[in-house]
Amino acid sequence: MGAPNVGLDVFFVLIGAILVFAMHGGFAFLEVGTVRQKNQVNALVKIIVDFSISVLAYFFIGYWIAYGTTFFVSAAQLSGDGGVFAPQGFTLVKFFFLATFAAAVPAIISGGIAERARFWPQVVAAGLIVGLIYPFFEGIVWNGNYGIQDWFARTLGAPFHDFAGSVVVHAVGGWLALSAVLRLGPRLGRYGPNGGPFLPSSIPWLALGTWLLCIGWFGFNVMSAQSVEGVTGLVAINSLLAMVGGIFAATIAGKRDPGFVHNGALAGLVAVCAGSNIMHPLGALAVGSVAGLIFVYCFHLVQERFKVDDVLGVWPLHGLCGLWGGVAAGIFGLEALGGLGGVTFLSQLVGSFGGAVFALVAGFALYAIISALTTIRLTDEEQLRGADISIHSIGANPEREF
Amino acid sequence: MGAPNVGLDVFFVLIGAILVFAMHGGFAFLEVGTVRQKNQVNALVKIIVDFSISVLAYFFIGYWIAYGTTFFVSAAQLSGDGGVFAPQGFTLVKFFFLATFAAAVPAIISGGIAERARFWPQVVAAGLIVGLIYPFFEGIVWNGNYGIQDWFARTLGAPFHDFAGSVVVHAVGGWLALSAVLRLGPRLGRYGPNGGPFLPSSIPWLALGTWLLCIGWFGFNVMSAQSVEGVTGLVAINSLLAMVGGIFAATIAGKRDPGFVHNGALAGLVAVCAGSNIMHPLGALAVGSVAGLIFVYCFHLVQERFKVDDVLGVWPLHGLCGLWGGVAAGIFGLEALGGLGGVTFLSQLVGSFGGAVFALVAGFALYAIISALTTIRLTDEEQLRGADISIHSIGANPEREF
Amino acid sequence: MGAPNVGLDVFFVLIGAILVFAMHGGFAFLEVGTVRQKNQVNALVKIIVDFSISVLAYFFIGYWIAYGTTFFVSAAQLSGDGGVFAPQGFTLVKFFFLATFAAAVPAIISGGIAERARFWPQVVAAGLIVGLIYPFFEGIVWNGNYGIQDWFARTLGAPFHDFAGSVVVHAVGGWLALSAVLRLGPRLGRYGPNGGPFLPSSIPWLALGTWLLCIGWFGFNVMSAQSVEGVTGLVAINSLLAMVGGIFAATIAGKRDPGFVHNGALAGLVAVCAGSNIMHPLGALAVGSVAGLIFVYCFHLVQERFKVDDVLGVWPLHGLCGLWGGVAAGIFGLEALGGLGGVTFLSQLVGSFGGAVFALVAGFALYAIISALTTIRLTDEEQLRGADISIHSIGANPEREF
Repeated sequence: MGAPNVGLDVFFVLIGAILVFAMHGGFAFLEVGTVRQKNQVNALVKIIVDFSISVLAYFFIGYWIAYGTTFFVSAAQLSGDGGVFAPQGFTLVKFFFLATFAAAVPAIISGGIAERARFWPQVVAAGLIVGLIYPFFEGIVWNGNYGIQDWFARTLGAPFHDFAGSVVVHAVGGWLALSAVLRLGPRLGRYGPNGGPFLPSSIPWLALGTWLLCIGWFGFNVMSAQSVEGVTGLVAINSLLAMVGGIFAATIAGKRDPGFVHNGALAGLVAVCAGSNIMHPLGALAVGSVAGLIFVYCFHLVQERFKVDDVLGVWPLHGLCGLWGGVAAGIFGLEALGGLGGVTFLSQLVGSFGGAVFALVAGFALYAIISALTTIRLTDEEQLRGADISIHSIGANPEREF
Repeated sequence: MGAPNVGLDVFFVLIGAILVFAMHGGFAFLEVGTVRQKNQVNALVKIIVDFSISVLAYFFIGYWIAYGTTFFVSAAQLSGDGGVFAPQGFTLVKFFFLATFAAAVPAIISGGIAERARFWPQVVAAGLIVGLIYPFFEGIVWNGNYGIQDWFARTLGAPFHDFAGSVVVHAVGGWLALSAVLRLGPRLGRYGPNGGPFLPSSIPWLALGTWLLCIGWFGFNVMSAQSVEGVTGLVAINSLLAMVGGIFAATIAGKRDPGFVHNGALAGLVAVCAGSNIMHPLGALAVGSVAGLIFVYCFHLVQERFKVDDVLGVWPLHGLCGLWGGVAAGIFGLEALGGLGGVTFLSQLVGSFGGAVFALVAGFALYAIISALTTIRLTDEEQLRGADISIHSIGANPEREF
Repeated sequence: MGAPNVGLDVFFVLIGAILVFAMHGGFAFLEVGTVRQKNQVNALVKIIVDFSISVLAYFFIGYWIAYGTTFFVSAAQLSGDGGVFAPQGFTLVKFFFLATFAAAVPAIISGGIAERARFWPQVVAAGLIVGLIYPFFEGIVWNGNYGIQDWFARTLGAPFHDFAGSVVVHAVGGWLALSAVLRLGPRLGRYGPNGGPFLPSSIPWLALGTWLLCIGWFGFNVMSAQSVEGVTGLVAINSLLAMVGGIFAATIAGKRDPGFVHNGALAGLVAVCAGSNIMHPLGALAVGSVAGLIFVYCFHLVQERFKVDDVLGVWPLHGLCGLWGGVAAGIFGLEALGGLGGVTFLSQLVGSFGGAVFALVAGFALYAIISALTTIRLTDEEQLRGADISIHSIGANPEREF
């Protein structure tokens, strides 16, 4: 990185970080709109507090696990006045950027376990995930830790390619969420003789969440280059076309249902992350369209057939579409299909499923330990009153409610 | 464009594209807040699906019509590895930027035809507009197609100047919308013996839409320079002062009505696009203030006197203020009035009215053809139940409604 | 500033301006969610009209008071074609950036005086504050006017350091608000035999306001460098950690109340502004955590014990946390505490309290004059009907209400 460009790269990565930070607002409002009204406040507080514990866990432990750097030197050294830190605090803004990625994992889980998780156990789980589990896998893929990427290159023909985190962030988040959802069990009254789907409280809030997520996602994907020298418009157009493909496929398959239409956009964006810098735009369009279909067809399957009460459908959305995205980079990234190459199908297949299995196993272990130590589920009475009153002593529209 | 700046320009235009993309969220929520509650979901789905079909139409046809470039080569070539494409995928991010402009045209129309348009015919119209009609005019003005700008320069003293699209985007969108509104007819019960204005469902959502539009608009205007070498703070301050002038004029003329106050901001921004890079800030303030007055005085005139059921007032807002903006660039852009010059009043007058007439004629033809082939209007019964239930089988607040 | 970087700096400061502009949307929605429903429209209109009058007052007078520059020359000169203006209109985009700071002061006050202020007197007050009071102090601190910074450097060991305005913007805004709140008196029915706290209308809108404020705040802080050469990631990470500290402290001290959790984020960000470019991230975490506690403990104290009806708690939030931030820069900015140095505790103490006293005195004078000339308070009957109907002739949900 040439010296004159340092300030520019600080600016570039900062904007990426701000955009991904805005996505967390998106997670919050998507959950607000999808849950029942008596759980809206809880959705909002969970997301912002999970974000906070994530930043702290990543600052004190996680970043060191992934990248081997700690921040316990003077501000002068952190600013790049000699030492291992890049000038103008570039390392610090990179931390900000990557911390917003890390914090996305608890935000994903939050949507799956909505309406019935106790507050503090869930905050502690977020801290452990972002402090230990996520950065362990992140470091393997993005920092070459433990030589596993070298092994992939030697044995499977190429390192595992996950440009912006279809697997590292989304599949890991989605499969961790699955383990959490299974451990918690379904919400009171969701299944059984008098059970049935709970309707979302507000489509406008759901849609606002989606818009914030989509807007921020262009920072998530494009700024993953982490330098202006490395930025490419290919990532931008591929993100756009995958999003559009997801919307369109979900609109048709989902019969114009607003939940499907808006989540279809997210499905396309989840799937395009991994290969967005190596696929042709038409490949991205195909990847996003398939992701939209995956979400629509798996959402009801999971909830109604498997009776897995994944409230926002985060396992299909992040878990399955993320998995698909990782594998798809090994298909549409190939030169034969108009891509830039440098990937193999086998490497993508093994890496993607490896991430999913890792997250599922780690999640089962983590939630088993936490639930052995404390109660992680709201009582039936607390669920009946709603997480808002039970946990936060206030509802979403206090003036009207009292 | 010097090589070291390519990555910087990719970054610059990307941010513009993201900001204009955010404006589409603004279009959605402005419509959500302005329509009746039983049509809120439809507003949301229309905007995001129209955006999607617009991107596809512009990718496959429209961009080629305007600029003569197609994207059907390998990703390596698209990334600028030889060939006609700029390095680091600059051409691709420029496509993203211009696609968000193109998609604004159906978003404008959507607000006019709200609450009574059938879904798919309206989506098809969006595709045809962005694939064929809009880029034909865009290419004439912004790419010099068919030598019409040369003819303007020779005959009227200067090429038609429309820096950020007061006419190309807004007037074209507004006059297309007028033709659509006239073809569709007024909403059930809007006029007649028991008719009367339908009140907006939610001022906060209306305001949120406006804020998103205003925030994104600075990208719409300033990033229209399309390179960091060409950027100028003049566009930024002029956009600011025109917006402020529109707000202030609409607040006074509109007697502090929140719909007028917020739309006044948009009126100022529509009008300033064309001349924002050549006017003095005081000129921009005047242009925006006049636009605010145009909106307030024409809104009721159109709806009550002419009985044209333009739900969000998009013809006054985009059609008339856009027209005014195009003409105003030929007044306040003159050096005699403190501007940078390079424009003539005559050229602006002819170009602006030319755009409006083109859009009106093209719109009449398009909607005549579509309505000859299929029904474009919801039945009375469907309107009574609301577009949400009729088209999307769900309302805006499903939990409360069932 | 080297010539090749001018366009880049225009871009950089523009993004800062857009982000701080977005914060004004945040102020609007934070107030919408916190006031009673019958005052939501008034909150929205106040913020956007105050923003407008602020831009005009700062353009015509305020910027000249602070920086000695006026804009009454040709557009060519403004664009940097010779004269005192920087090339590519850099001076103009800097005006935009600083105008969004200036306009934050009335936005802060707005939250304190909510629900009972008459419209136009309050708009006039905003104009006078941004045209005269704020820029007088701003020029002293940020432009070295009247040699007061020199006196600080000579006498107190260092100039008063307020990088991004903990004192210049927030404490000044908060203490002006206190004077306004005291002059207006409490809302009808707030205290007395049947009085009691008025509950907020909507936590989701309150939260949305907070998210917009937090997102934009990274522009407020980081772009205060005003050039890419001067940008540092230290400001970014410090803002992040102070925000997170504020959230966490307020969550615990505030018992998971959503109002405290979200305002805790703002408290941390207010306090970190002054020293964000000189503190260690751990110092920023401490500063933000203390700010979160200040807000939680002072909010009820002010409202219940002192019976000061500061609706959004803007005096604790901006006044006290801003004061704390100014002083804290003289603690955690010291090299002994891992900071970059260049500050003294005494200088920060005197400067911070000086700002608070200046604002309080100026505010008492201003509101005394205005209330001598006109009525500034809504009548009891107007308050009963709500500011929305009384001032704007329409409520927040017109369709439902009629």
